[in-house]
Amino acid sequence: MEETARKYELRDLDRIFNASSVAIVGASTNPEKLGYEILNNLINMGYEGPIYPINPKADEVLGLKAYPSLSDVGKPIDVIAVIVPGKFAPGVIEEAGRLGVKGAVVISGGFREIGNDDLEAAMVSAARAGGVGIIGPNCQGINYPANKLCISWPLIKCQGGLALISQSGTIAAALGDRAEKEDIGISGLVALGNRCDIDESDLINFFGADPSTEVIAVYIEGVKDGDKFMDVGRRVAKDKPVLVLKGGRTERGRQAAESHTKSIAGRGEIFDAALRKIGFEKVESIDELYDCSKVLAVEKKRPGRRVQVITSSGGSGIVAVDVLEELGLDVAPLSDSGRARLKEVLPSHCVVGNPLDLTGDTPAERYTEAVLALAEEEPGIDLYLLIFGDPIPRAMENCLEMKEAVDKPIIACYIGGGEVEEVEFKKMNGARIPTFPTPERVARAARSVLTG
Amino acid sequence: MEETARKYELRDLDRIFNASSVAIVGASTNPEKLGYEILNNLINMGYEGPIYPINPKADEVLGLKAYPSLSDVGKPIDVIAVIVPGKFAPGVIEEAGRLGVKGAVVISGGFREIGNDDLEAAMVSAARAGGVGIIGPNCQGINYPANKLCISWPLIKCQGGLALISQSGTIAAALGDRAEKEDIGISGLVALGNRCDIDESDLINFFGADPSTEVIAVYIEGVKDGDKFMDVGRRVAKDKPVLVLKGGRTERGRQAAESHTKSIAGRGEIFDAALRKIGFEKVESIDELYDCSKVLAVEKKRPGRRVQVITSSGGSGIVAVDVLEELGLDVAPLSDSGRARLKEVLPSHCVVGNPLDLTGDTPAERYTEAVLALAEEEPGIDLYLLIFGDPIPRAMENCLEMKEAVDKPIIACYIGGGEVEEVEFKKMNGARIPTFPTPERVARAARSVLTG
Repeated sequence: MEETARKYELRDLDRIFNASSVAIVGASTNPEKLGYEILNNLINMGYEGPIYPINPKADEVLGLKAYPSLSDVGKPIDVIAVIVPGKFAPGVIEEAGRLGVKGAVVISGGFREIGNDDLEAAMVSAARAGGVGIIGPNCQGINYPANKLCISWPLIKCQGGLALISQSGTIAAALGDRAEKEDIGISGLVALGNRCDIDESDLINFFGADPSTEVIAVYIEGVKDGDKFMDVGRRVAKDKPVLVLKGGRTERGRQAAESHTKSIAGRGEIFDAALRKIGFEKVESIDELYDCSKVLAVEKKRPGRRVQVITSSGGSGIVAVDVLEELGLDVAPLSDSGRARLKEVLPSHCVVGNPLDLTGDTPAERYTEAVLALAEEEPGIDLYLLIFGDPIPRAMENCLEMKEAVDKPIIACYIGGGEVEEVEFKKMNGARIPTFPTPERVARAARSVLTG
Repeated sequence: MEETARKYELRDLDRIFNASSVAIVGASTNPEKLGYEILNNLINMGYEGPIYPINPKADEVLGLKAYPSLSDVGKPIDVIAVIVPGKFAPGVIEEAGRLGVKGAVVISGGFREIGNDDLEAAMVSAARAGGVGIIGPNCQGINYPANKLCISWPLIKCQGGLALISQSGTIAAALGDRAEKEDIGISGLVALGNRCDIDESDLINFFGADPSTEVIAVYIEGVKDGDKFMDVGRRVAKDKPVLVLKGGRTERGRQAAESHTKSIAGRGEIFDAALRKIGFEKVESIDELYDCSKVLAVEKKRPGRRVQVITSSGGSGIVAVDVLEELGLDVAPLSDSGRARLKEVLPSHCVVGNPLDLTGDTPAERYTEAVLALAEEEPGIDLYLLIFGDPIPRAMENCLEMKEAVDKPIIACYIGGGEVEEVEFKKMNGARIPTFPTPERVARAARSVLTG
């Protein structure tokens, strides 16, 4: 059995994520080491408070004055990163507690995950005694762009509405990396590691109240404290969507999860029932976790189920319609007046209907003309799903123009467009038009916005 | 009802794909036009036979001597691309027939897809009379890297084992573009368009016999001639895997498919039953079509269902195990001797089992050590699924080393690895180690190799 978790107040976590100063215990001058990379990332993130590298063998690390120990800094320290071997961690945490440090991000491994339960317990005792909140140990750190606080890798600088909380550092890094490359951005990232102290519930609570967070994406293998999770979850779910991917759904997966973070992996069905009760949404894959979070970082959930598909690629439109139908959305035919109006504004070779097929030679402007006409004639449309299925420049500018004029979500797929696609894909996501690489994925994203 | 399709012999299609000379009817000097882009792609593909631009208003196009008409060329022409407005196409085909042209790739639209059935019928009559095989009309062309014959866009140069046949030009382009960017390559690509003459069955037959094709990926909305499809399919399925994504599975999707290419979209269940009878495999999404084709372009299907997962990311390993289990594969525990042997060769912090978790600090060499040890101790393993869940350099070199030593498929996921990932991902695919971006997608690919 796991011990009962302490519950962190919002102000405790706020002091960690909004830290005014940071010390890196184990900062290294060797570019091959994590103690170098993390310090380097924190500097390159543009962190504005003082940074204190702790390294007894160096005078300076990466151009910053280094100190032999935390006590030698002689100035207030809010948060420390711990990258020294695990056996030294309890001592570091004890010293940190004495100095008034609020939080420790313990990257180091060598604890419970390899059977060293006593070492982990000693560190937790020191933390509780000194009032230090621990994230980790054995974790990939935290990132909070609002405070330019990256104590993690890879470096993710782009700020957006998506908070990532993950029991797997790699899955957090992979999702954060996508959000960076696609210009979606994150509001925060936390790799939980062994979560000996601060746990998923504390973090869901924190990001639930965090003004820059619009959606919370969670990868988890088991919940540390069920009552706390239910209690926090119910409150947060009222305000913000929380999407959960659970590792260890199958029997063999569950066994693997239990040896991964030595935590109790909940039984699949019980976990699913709990999520439903709370109002969290279960997703089935890493891609789905990312895609649904990406759209909910920009678009609020809203009632409705009618989707209008507008495409330049007939085949891609059909594939989207199939998935929308299978997901229970309504790909309703146009009204007579809607059809008549579109026939007026569009060239005769366009196939007027739902999907509306503008065909392969369409310029991006024709999408705008179609959406503006439909906005007048078909007020019942709840969401526009646009497929740019060819190299179509100016897709982003046109989407922004329609978004100005239409009070409905506009999401897109950009596919088959070679070099133009690479440019437009990133531009569109950066301009907060959630854009996906296939018709299936954009259809699933539509489902996550519309509540039926 | 559709007319009964003509059946093309292999030698007819061979003369088209292995054309010794090509004329581009409608070659343009304007870089904005398709008649420029296609000629440009054919040149940049490195096509070695003579290329004849046909353009009555230019002496030269893209540095090549232009001719006012096909008849003016005065030399044998095997294949023509038709990019002039549709209304001129029947005349061009008639002229081509008189000159002994074997095949015409009709890119032009303006036929049946907009209700001009008579124009299309006139073109087909001219083709039949003159012995010209038509691909299209209203299509995105063909690409056959073995003959450096790209009469299509975008330019795809990389040759591999994957043949793409698609009723959607955009879906063909999207899949071909991925295969080019990931260094997987294609053996051929055909966008069927209205398929007024040469149809999916002819092409499945051709690529079934094509020595460079290992797997055939088909996107289709309906079959042109059911008997022909069954007949050809049964023969080809004995030799090569054929994967089929059907557009128009749902009622609304089917309606859209019928207005897309004016073809009879088969009812979902009947189509599925036919595929099973033939021995083709149905897939559910564009990503699945690509992923399964990608692995089968390199690995032969084989009996067996036992998969060994080796990972540096605990969480990603668990996600893979869940999907493998859900797909009916066997993530069997290790034998006592297998466990003992791994404990000998690996550091003590590795979690020995299935998944085998090498943990985040592992170098690529440790994967090789593990695979070589397991190859001796666990002969029952049917496939190795490797997850590189961190920035791990030299993944490709190590995979090649194990592949030399082990006679089992080795497939990989590379995730969360930042810049190193981009480099290794392409290197691995280029070295014929099929590599995927998520644990779910690599697990599905494993399923498509193992026949149970």
